[in-house]
Amino acid sequence: MRFTSEQRHDDGVLEREFTLGEIPGSEIPGTLWTPGSGPAPLILMAHNNGLPRRESRLVARARYTVARGYAVATIDAPGCGDRPRSDADEQARADLRRAMQAGEPVDEIFESFIGPLVEKAVPEWRATLDALLSLPGIDGPVGYSGWTAVGIRLAAVEPRIAAAGLFAGGYVPLAQREEARQVTVPLLFLLQWDDEGNPRQRALDLFDAFGSREKTLHANLGGHVGTPWFETEDGGRFYDRHLKK
Amino acid sequence: MRFTSEQRHDDGVLEREFTLGEIPGSEIPGTLWTPGSGPAPLILMAHNNGLPRRESRLVARARYTVARGYAVATIDAPGCGDRPRSDADEQARADLRRAMQAGEPVDEIFESFIGPLVEKAVPEWRATLDALLSLPGIDGPVGYSGWTAVGIRLAAVEPRIAAAGLFAGGYVPLAQREEARQVTVPLLFLLQWDDEGNPRQRALDLFDAFGSREKTLHANLGGHVGTPWFETEDGGRFYDRHLKK
Repeated sequence: MRFTSEQRHDDGVLEREFTLGEIPGSEIPGTLWTPGSGPAPLILMAHNNGLPRRESRLVARARYTVARGYAVATIDAPGCGDRPRSDADEQARADLRRAMQAGEPVDEIFESFIGPLVEKAVPEWRATLDALLSLPGIDGPVGYSGWTAVGIRLAAVEPRIAAAGLFAGGYVPLAQREEARQVTVPLLFLLQWDDEGNPRQRALDLFDAFGSREKTLHANLGGHVGTPWFETEDGGRFYDRHLKK
Repeated sequence: MRFTSEQRHDDGVLEREFTLGEIPGSEIPGTLWTPGSGPAPLILMAHNNGLPRRESRLVARARYTVARGYAVATIDAPGCGDRPRSDADEQARADLRRAMQAGEPVDEIFESFIGPLVEKAVPEWRATLDALLSLPGIDGPVGYSGWTAVGIRLAAVEPRIAAAGLFAGGYVPLAQREEARQVTVPLLFLLQWDDEGNPRQRALDLFDAFGSREKTLHANLGGHVGTPWFETEDGGRFYDRHLKK
C-alpha cells in the first residue's frame, strides 16, 4: 500500500489517497479517512459498481462516519472510478443501457456482468483489509458498509468482518443470494421502497435469507437515490453498538 | 380529568394516575408522566388491546421517552386493564382462545372484536387529548406511539397528531386498512419479522398503503415480543425530528 496524497481537513480528519498492488494497469486506487486521534475501528465502505469513490454522497457518508470515531476506507472496483475498463466492461454497460432503454429484461446481463465483478472485487477488499490493519491507528473490529453483493461474499468468507450495513439497491447475483444464508454477523439492511431498478420482493426475500440472528431492515419511501440522511446516523449507531468496545 | 395519585421519581419524572369522565363504570383510567421541567411535547402511548397500561415494558418505554423530554400519557382501552369487561368482551376472548388453540382462522373473530373496540377507543383518546392539552406544561405538537389500528384512525381524523410510531404486531380491522391511505403524517412502522399471530405480508401491504410522504419501516428478526430495545431509542429520535421545535 502506497500513499499518493494526503490532506488534513479542518475537523482534524486525515484523508489519504492510496494505491495497492504493483502491476501497472491493475493497481487498486483507494481513499482512507482517519479521525484526528486514534486508534479507531475500521469500516470498509464499498460502493456499487459504476460509482467512483469520490462521488459526493459517498464522501459525505465517509466523513460523517469518521467524525463518529471510525477509520473509513474505500477502493474503486475493477472497471469503476479511476480504473481502466475492459472491452467486456464497455460491452456489458452498453448492453445494459440498450436493454433498459428498450424496457427489456436485464437480469441476465446483470448476472453476467456483476457476478464476475463480485468474484474479482472480494479478494481486492481482503488484500486492502490486510494492508489497512497493518497501519498504526487502525484497529478491529471491522465493519462493512454499502454494496450488498460484495458485502455478502465478504461477510461469508472474511472472519474479521464483525457487522455489516448493506444497501439493497443493486443487483445481487444468484451466487450471493445463496451465500446470504452463510452471513451470520449483525446486519442493517437498507431498502428504498420504490427503487426503480430493484424489485422490492427480491430485496425482502434476501433480508429473509440472511443467516444472522440480529438483522434489521430499514425501508424508506422513495427511489434509488432518495435514502434520507437520518439513515446515515442510524447506520452510525448500528456500528457503535457492534464495533465500539 | 381528575388526578387520583401522584408519585415523584428520583429522576424528577412526575407520574400521575388520572380518570376521565364521570359516569360510574365508564371512567377512563390513565397514567401521565411528565419530565421534571416543562413544557414538553406530548406523546400518546396507546397499547394494544389486552395489555394493561401498567405492563412493565410499556412503563419502561414511557419512562425512557419522558427522559428524552416528552410528556407521555396512556389510557386503558374499553375492557382492558382496570376497566370492566362486558359479557361480549369475555365471549370474544373465549372464542379467540378456542380458535387459536384449535388452529382455526381467527380473522373474523378479530374483526368482530377489534373493529368495534377501535371505534370506541378513538373518541376516548381524543377526549383525553383535549384534557391533557389543557394542563400546564403540556404542549403540542403531539405524537402517537403504539397500537396501529387506533393510530391509523386517530392520525386520519385528528389534526393535532403530527407524527406516529406504530407497532405492526396486532390485528388491523379492514376499515383501518382502508383508512391507512388517509394517514399523511410522518410514520415509523415497527415490524417483528416472525410475529407469530400477524401475517408479515399483511403488515408490508399496510406499510405500502400509508399515504405519508415520509414513512420508514423498521423490521427486526424475532417474534411478537422480541423488539430490541434500540428500537425504543430509534423511536425517540424519530419523535425528536418531528416534535421538537
